[in-house]
Amino acid sequence: MENQIWRDIQLIREDAPLVLNITNHVVMNTTANALLAIGASPVMAHAIEEIEEMVALAKALVINIGTLSSPWIMAMFKAGKEARRRNIPIVLDPVGCGATRFRMTTVLQLIREIQPTIIRGNASEIRSLALSGPGGKGVDSQHTPDEVSEDARALSRSAGCVVSVSGPVDLVVQGDDSVRIANGHPLMTKVTGMGCTASAITGAFVAINPSPFQAAAHGMAIMGISGEIAAGHSAGPGSFQSNFLDALYGLQEADIVQHLKMQSL
Amino acid sequence: MENQIWRDIQLIREDAPLVLNITNHVVMNTTANALLAIGASPVMAHAIEEIEEMVALAKALVINIGTLSSPWIMAMFKAGKEARRRNIPIVLDPVGCGATRFRMTTVLQLIREIQPTIIRGNASEIRSLALSGPGGKGVDSQHTPDEVSEDARALSRSAGCVVSVSGPVDLVVQGDDSVRIANGHPLMTKVTGMGCTASAITGAFVAINPSPFQAAAHGMAIMGISGEIAAGHSAGPGSFQSNFLDALYGLQEADIVQHLKMQSL
Amino acid sequence: MENQIWRDIQLIREDAPLVLNITNHVVMNTTANALLAIGASPVMAHAIEEIEEMVALAKALVINIGTLSSPWIMAMFKAGKEARRRNIPIVLDPVGCGATRFRMTTVLQLIREIQPTIIRGNASEIRSLALSGPGGKGVDSQHTPDEVSEDARALSRSAGCVVSVSGPVDLVVQGDDSVRIANGHPLMTKVTGMGCTASAITGAFVAINPSPFQAAAHGMAIMGISGEIAAGHSAGPGSFQSNFLDALYGLQEADIVQHLKMQSL
Repeated sequence: MENQIWRDIQLIREDAPLVLNITNHVVMNTTANALLAIGASPVMAHAIEEIEEMVALAKALVINIGTLSSPWIMAMFKAGKEARRRNIPIVLDPVGCGATRFRMTTVLQLIREIQPTIIRGNASEIRSLALSGPGGKGVDSQHTPDEVSEDARALSRSAGCVVSVSGPVDLVVQGDDSVRIANGHPLMTKVTGMGCTASAITGAFVAINPSPFQAAAHGMAIMGISGEIAAGHSAGPGSFQSNFLDALYGLQEADIVQHLKMQSL
Repeated sequence: MENQIWRDIQLIREDAPLVLNITNHVVMNTTANALLAIGASPVMAHAIEEIEEMVALAKALVINIGTLSSPWIMAMFKAGKEARRRNIPIVLDPVGCGATRFRMTTVLQLIREIQPTIIRGNASEIRSLALSGPGGKGVDSQHTPDEVSEDARALSRSAGCVVSVSGPVDLVVQGDDSVRIANGHPLMTKVTGMGCTASAITGAFVAINPSPFQAAAHGMAIMGISGEIAAGHSAGPGSFQSNFLDALYGLQEADIVQHLKMQSL
Repeated sequence: MENQIWRDIQLIREDAPLVLNITNHVVMNTTANALLAIGASPVMAHAIEEIEEMVALAKALVINIGTLSSPWIMAMFKAGKEARRRNIPIVLDPVGCGATRFRMTTVLQLIREIQPTIIRGNASEIRSLALSGPGGKGVDSQHTPDEVSEDARALSRSAGCVVSVSGPVDLVVQGDDSVRIANGHPLMTKVTGMGCTASAITGAFVAINPSPFQAAAHGMAIMGISGEIAAGHSAGPGSFQSNFLDALYGLQEADIVQHLKMQSL
């Protein structure tokens, strides 16, 4: 697995695939910088007037509902349908979808109409989605991947896509296949938008790897490994943010070999 | 006072209160990270469709007019009224309110209709508000807390709330009571959104401390102390930002005892 | 040239000119911090209701189309016309203008109606503009300044303004005059919004230097020199961001003398 992940990183660095993000106001800068650090080309856009042309230039589309509002929702649907039509893979991050009906309704309709390739969220969001009901406290997660593996499987089947769940142990599911990744560090929960960054990085991997299941797993592995490397010399969440981008940027094959804790189930 | 501040920090770290922010585009990432670093749970949202449900989940509401526009104003009023109805404390940051009539009109109407628990701004903003007229050069302050203490007192009485004024010496006023905090560092004026961060952090304190006067004072003290600790090993405003989050995150009781310069008047 | 640049920096630090930015969501925080670090006073605003009053307070206006949408476009035109009427210099950054017709149409109309003082973009954007046709892959540049010097000259003549092109070697053109700046570092392309930051910093220089040609050249020189200093002790793009702000903030005359690689043509 290590050399497949390394091959993907090399491809991202060589191709610099354009990843189009319709994302939230909080993390735009962070996720753009993470995409640049891994070697991809980020674009952030949301105007209904241009979104289809942007999709046509992109190798992957990442949709994130973190600071949702009506004009952005229209762009999400338009972009998603165009991406579907062009077979451009779509990553959907249902940020805080259990918190309000507005978010849940929007996400369920997005899943139905644009058929995302990968849904990537935390355990609370995936559980809310699987149950299609309320739950979760904002964007935080109170569940472990173990508790939601059944929900992830159910969502993967009903939505017909890969489901990627972040947590102390990450879980990636596609139908009956699943893989766990035990990388990462608690400091990652003390920085805003690390989940959103995971979705963006997943976008970079699915832009160059034809297997969405592999792409989702590789994305989470790289997030966790970079997080471990960064936390190793961070005094807190502030220095961690800088160190995380440095780690993503400087990632070597040996880092993956040394750190990877991935297990197929 | 030191042990009351420390007790508040412990409560924030234990309870991780949800602080809902309708804030400006410039500081969303910064303030979310500061809230996470202190131990709170930040949510940023602004859609009229969901804002009342978000308020229902929150322990405090922070409204910041830094990059105001009509759709956001509607959300501010709707959120503020719902928070008032539910007795959820409200912190209002009147960023640059003296710069344009649009800002001043909006802030005065917000104060009237949602009755904020705490108004937190710089000396120039508080003076503009107290005089209800134009003044100030954008978001910068040219006045010292001494010069505006009378204005703060007048505003506190007319608005019926706590007024928290940042500056070289911070001032927190409620009617006849007031306290000065002489913590902080000049580098804090070279980073955008430190005032907005002070408002968000004040939101975390008022979420767990039933006294808005204490909460406002404790918030400013922690801002100033973290700023001093961070500045001690920063080469400039870039490294200061990282160090500030690290300082907030790592704050110990001994830091407060060592640094606190708070004086009741 | 070194002492002219140093004089400009001293003026910025003394006057703290207000630079009004109608810019994109990705870089608002970054560019505000860069303006503070160099000594200017940033304001970010975009509401049609207040933008003219904001312009009246400003010493320079920076318009950046990175995350364009209709309400922001209206503010750009209104602000630009007011700035023109008041002889306040305007810097226009045509981010990704070759990527969609929406961007290109908006930028061409902005150039016609608000007559920017300086157009500052990367080689791909300037080429797209000069050809007034599609081109470029998002916000990245594939051309060297050498390849676009002819385009820059053509655009400078047709738009009647200074054209500032960033790249491995920066190029500033006004009619027949031009200057090359060979400062900078490859890490600058791995951080989002360094081009946008260059436009904001150019705004600070044109706020205090009556020659837009000099202001544009000095802005690019300071960007490149600060980038070199920062890269010298950065492990990657994360630490580079902090170090860049520290370098801007701490810039001394000796740094300029030591690093400057500027050549009039």
